[in-house]
Amino acid sequence: MSFVPQDPDFEARVRRSFAAQRVMETIGARLARVAPGEVDVELAFRDDLTQQNGFLHAGIVSTVLDSACGYAAYTLMPADAGVLSIEFKVNLLAPAVGERVIARARVVRAGRTISVCTADAFAIRDGAERHVSTMTATMMTVPTRENAGG
Amino acid sequence: MSFVPQDPDFEARVRRSFAAQRVMETIGARLARVAPGEVDVELAFRDDLTQQNGFLHAGIVSTVLDSACGYAAYTLMPADAGVLSIEFKVNLLAPAVGERVIARARVVRAGRTISVCTADAFAIRDGAERHVSTMTATMMTVPTRENAGG
Amino acid sequence: MSFVPQDPDFEARVRRSFAAQRVMETIGARLARVAPGEVDVELAFRDDLTQQNGFLHAGIVSTVLDSACGYAAYTLMPADAGVLSIEFKVNLLAPAVGERVIARARVVRAGRTISVCTADAFAIRDGAERHVSTMTATMMTVPTRENAGG
Amino acid sequence: MSFVPQDPDFEARVRRSFAAQRVMETIGARLARVAPGEVDVELAFRDDLTQQNGFLHAGIVSTVLDSACGYAAYTLMPADAGVLSIEFKVNLLAPAVGERVIARARVVRAGRTISVCTADAFAIRDGAERHVSTMTATMMTVPTRENAGG
Repeated sequence: MSFVPQDPDFEARVRRSFAAQRVMETIGARLARVAPGEVDVELAFRDDLTQQNGFLHAGIVSTVLDSACGYAAYTLMPADAGVLSIEFKVNLLAPAVGERVIARARVVRAGRTISVCTADAFAIRDGAERHVSTMTATMMTVPTRENAGG
Repeated sequence: MSFVPQDPDFEARVRRSFAAQRVMETIGARLARVAPGEVDVELAFRDDLTQQNGFLHAGIVSTVLDSACGYAAYTLMPADAGVLSIEFKVNLLAPAVGERVIARARVVRAGRTISVCTADAFAIRDGAERHVSTMTATMMTVPTRENAGG
Repeated sequence: MSFVPQDPDFEARVRRSFAAQRVMETIGARLARVAPGEVDVELAFRDDLTQQNGFLHAGIVSTVLDSACGYAAYTLMPADAGVLSIEFKVNLLAPAVGERVIARARVVRAGRTISVCTADAFAIRDGAERHVSTMTATMMTVPTRENAGG
Repeated sequence: MSFVPQDPDFEARVRRSFAAQRVMETIGARLARVAPGEVDVELAFRDDLTQQNGFLHAGIVSTVLDSACGYAAYTLMPADAGVLSIEFKVNLLAPAVGERVIARARVVRAGRTISVCTADAFAIRDGAERHVSTMTATMMTVPTRENAGG
């Protein structure tokens, strides 16, 4: 599927909003790629983000997947809109271990109000990728007036 | 529904495993309550855990909800088992703002291999609670041998 | 939680729309109860609705859960609105066997555009109820003009 | 991803089990394709399977998606195993209208106990396909002894 963004300046807008997500800096996630309907977010492995077995906590991987989905949807929204997560579901496929995790999100449906995205997280270890989790998420376009309510 | 734990020492076991989730210390979450089939986890609001509108990021709230679900299931598991998240889904109901968030999880089905839990997160502000998100999660009992594979 | 419907005639409106769901007659489901923010739908067990082990197919139970959720949300919508399922998730807890299944749905969040509902299905056998599945669903209020698009 | 079935006779096994799902005959669904880790199920549009706007009911489309996922997982299971749906989530993308719907499922993770599948449903109208819904599902391998418990 190929998408034409309504806002030609979509990448700068996504990067500004991502930079305003203070949790991304806290966990060390960075925006790796922004394209129409697609966003990748990367997270370096850190011991202080792990669960009881030493793997990245599923919630932390979900944080990255959710932001990737939200910004994938946001690339296609009008210049003055905000984006809001309505819901997401994650299936955990394998332990998130390695040097880093990359979450790759893409828009499946871009509606006026509701967008649906899927995202997959891959753990990278010694140059090999392993599929560790998969998300489907529903995102909402929030008109400017309500933007603070996201 | 009322549950009788197989392991009378369930609370100490849950507390040990929670203490081993290094991400909980990183985000400042604490185990507020442990009972058979029920666990509450509390998270103080912190600016460095927010998304672009200044609310707690949905992924961070999910991190707390997922751990609450996992440990609710874990209270009912055999003494030598491990617990593993298979999947979870979150619906975001309202912005997570306030002084703190409390995630309350309870077991809906406790099977030999598969358990199902639900959890609700409430934001607490000036003494009032607001329901901000709801999760359903599937947890797996992992025999000791495979415990490291969680 | 208690809700005050915007449309005092909500029950008749729900009953009319349910009657227009032709699949409900096909599978033999009936509207058992309509209250503000709550709807129960009942389905008699039938051999021709089963999966390979002789239980009601999870998709058929989901059909009833989804309609119960949709109409629970619909009780709180304006008189001229339509209702649309955005997404739902079901956890299967036990085999759906017995004389009949009852799906009980309730609204968790009633927003202007987005509502969230949960529903539980119980199998009834010899007078005893067993919890067989649980759903969370997102419903959308569709303004009249777009009503046909539900 | 390419899979090697443990049971060379997987297709006959899937077809036998599908034929035992009486609901498939009731709604008129048929097994359109069986390959290692992949199954397609087709459903002809019928007025008696519709919701209030004349579209196929989301629960009926989910019935077909769930069976497609279950049998995709089942192609990779041992000859004497049974398959059980643990949970599924569906996002509804567009109205299911047209001449027929095809659900295409594939295995994302094939574990010893737990498999994860995704499936997409497409409505076919005048030869054109439209993506109408997407599912992720968790399936469980049930050893023979417990097979009746599916």
